Amino acid sequence: MDLVIGIDIGGTKTKIGLVDVKGNCLADTFFRTREFPDIDSYLDKVVATVKELQSQVAAEINFLGCGIGAPNASSRDGTIVHASNLVWKGVVPILAKMAERMPLPMKITNDANAAALGEMLFGVAKGMEDFIVITLGTGFGAGIVANGKLIEGYDGFAGELGHVDMTIGDGRLTGLNVRGGLEAYVSATGLKRTMLYLQSKYMDESRFRSIAYNDLHGEEITQAAVEGDPIAIKAFDYTAKILGQAMANFTAFSQPEAFILMGGLVNSGKWIMEPLQKYFEKNLLEFYKGKVKILLSGLPGKTTAISGAAALIWADHTNDY
Amino acid sequence: MDLVIGIDIGGTKTKIGLVDVKGNCLADTFFRTREFPDIDSYLDKVVATVKELQSQVAAEINFLGCGIGAPNASSRDGTIVHASNLVWKGVVPILAKMAERMPLPMKITNDANAAALGEMLFGVAKGMEDFIVITLGTGFGAGIVANGKLIEGYDGFAGELGHVDMTIGDGRLTGLNVRGGLEAYVSATGLKRTMLYLQSKYMDESRFRSIAYNDLHGEEITQAAVEGDPIAIKAFDYTAKILGQAMANFTAFSQPEAFILMGGLVNSGKWIMEPLQKYFEKNLLEFYKGKVKILLSGLPGKTTAISGAAALIWADHTNDY
Repeated sequence: MDLVIGIDIGGTKTKIGLVDVKGNCLADTFFRTREFPDIDSYLDKVVATVKELQSQVAAEINFLGCGIGAPNASSRDGTIVHASNLVWKGVVPILAKMAERMPLPMKITNDANAAALGEMLFGVAKGMEDFIVITLGTGFGAGIVANGKLIEGYDGFAGELGHVDMTIGDGRLTGLNVRGGLEAYVSATGLKRTMLYLQSKYMDESRFRSIAYNDLHGEEITQAAVEGDPIAIKAFDYTAKILGQAMANFTAFSQPEAFILMGGLVNSGKWIMEPLQKYFEKNLLEFYKGKVKILLSGLPGKTTAISGAAALIWADHTNDY
Repeated sequence: MDLVIGIDIGGTKTKIGLVDVKGNCLADTFFRTREFPDIDSYLDKVVATVKELQSQVAAEINFLGCGIGAPNASSRDGTIVHASNLVWKGVVPILAKMAERMPLPMKITNDANAAALGEMLFGVAKGMEDFIVITLGTGFGAGIVANGKLIEGYDGFAGELGHVDMTIGDGRLTGLNVRGGLEAYVSATGLKRTMLYLQSKYMDESRFRSIAYNDLHGEEITQAAVEGDPIAIKAFDYTAKILGQAMANFTAFSQPEAFILMGGLVNSGKWIMEPLQKYFEKNLLEFYKGKVKILLSGLPGKTTAISGAAALIWADHTNDY
């Protein structure tokens, strides 16, 4: 049976799975990325994990290749470059190092680009020519498709929308030292920073006045919103306002048919989605209003990123089936 | 001889020319757009102008078609929609109305998209797959090419970068009521508004304290900068700062190989270009620095927009020669 290895390298977790032609994960697992600060022992762990997964699949496997999604990946050079959310610094020649370990066709791209390919091949973007995938995890990622093709840019680094400055140089710093950068507001980390900011700005009573920044988790903020915590509710509204404004700006760039959202922040459901829809429409130019959809990922939640990474390879085989 | 009619509909002037396969204008002229508030009499004037030009060309002409560049043009519907810098309001079915007057293949696109096609076919973008043309005239236009193709968007309205909000909802209003929109800062009109703002902010002596807004022209501001007027010099710096920031943001979107600038503001030469280069590089993310060129249009200045419009038709004939 033909399968593709899909690897999603995230700031927190590395997810690995074996993906079939429909985008289904036949076996998958994860480990903590930060536990391997040395890239070589990290890749040894990856290879060992693939072997483990292989043994879980009953059928005889023919691997067509390995697709990797990672922040700040250069598809042209096969490298990861200055990724602020990863432990390895500088330029990491990850594809060359993987090829030493596994003699397979291998591709890498920005994690959000991989997600965009996944949605196009297996998810809600089937048949769409123009759409933007936004991944809201530890950081903020974007995969942009126009004219039916991923926009990779001159050098393979397009779609770094988390570092777009929304404030003419006056605002929070992102991990790449961009002042006012979107990711500093709209991401799991951004939401936590907003919780601090709003507690500084307002005097509302809130359970979060007893919780330190390092002990704060996204799920708790959602739970608090459900229970009516004013700071939590304001934090989602504030996040949605900036994301809505940013998405309206992005619409002026490539006029997508839809934005497709995924990642931890989206799990907060209506707390983020309802104000987002409102602020997005409010900020859209007149001739875009009512025309741009906001969709949730059409890939199975837990393995979205894995299927996306595998789509890098599967895209070359769609005509074989 | 095969020629294409190129028409550039601007807020101030309508430029018309007859363009050969190399992008050269064999005959061209212009008239004031605002003198024809009625679209039908405007188009009659266009047709009369084409006949006039035709009589100036010695050779027998075979018209291959007519290409039109206009602000807020929808290439799919052949309309101009809510163009803030034009006299005709609402939705103007300009291609249908033109076809009644001239039975020729006809195409329309956003004026900046036309300019981008022109640069790709005839100008400095020959051989480039990823670039962005920015037109700095009465308004701010952008034509974006990625993967060798113009990004037109789901509905034909991509590239409206003049209405990107740079200030999270706090700033000047554009003609489309976008608060903080780029065009309100970076355009001929934006520069004039900045002249007022800086006179309000600083107490420097300046000849402009005796000139009212409505009497102010871009060329004078350049001349004043040459003569050392502090408000004029600050105005170019301020404009360049916002444009540099915006171009750094756009780079994060599609990572172009180059930005190609054209239009009135660019005629201010080093007063705008030197600070622009500085602020652009300063704001670029680390992995883009030194990689993205800022170029001036490679098309003959006076007829750039006409050649660009004609490129809409010529693009379909490049293999015939």
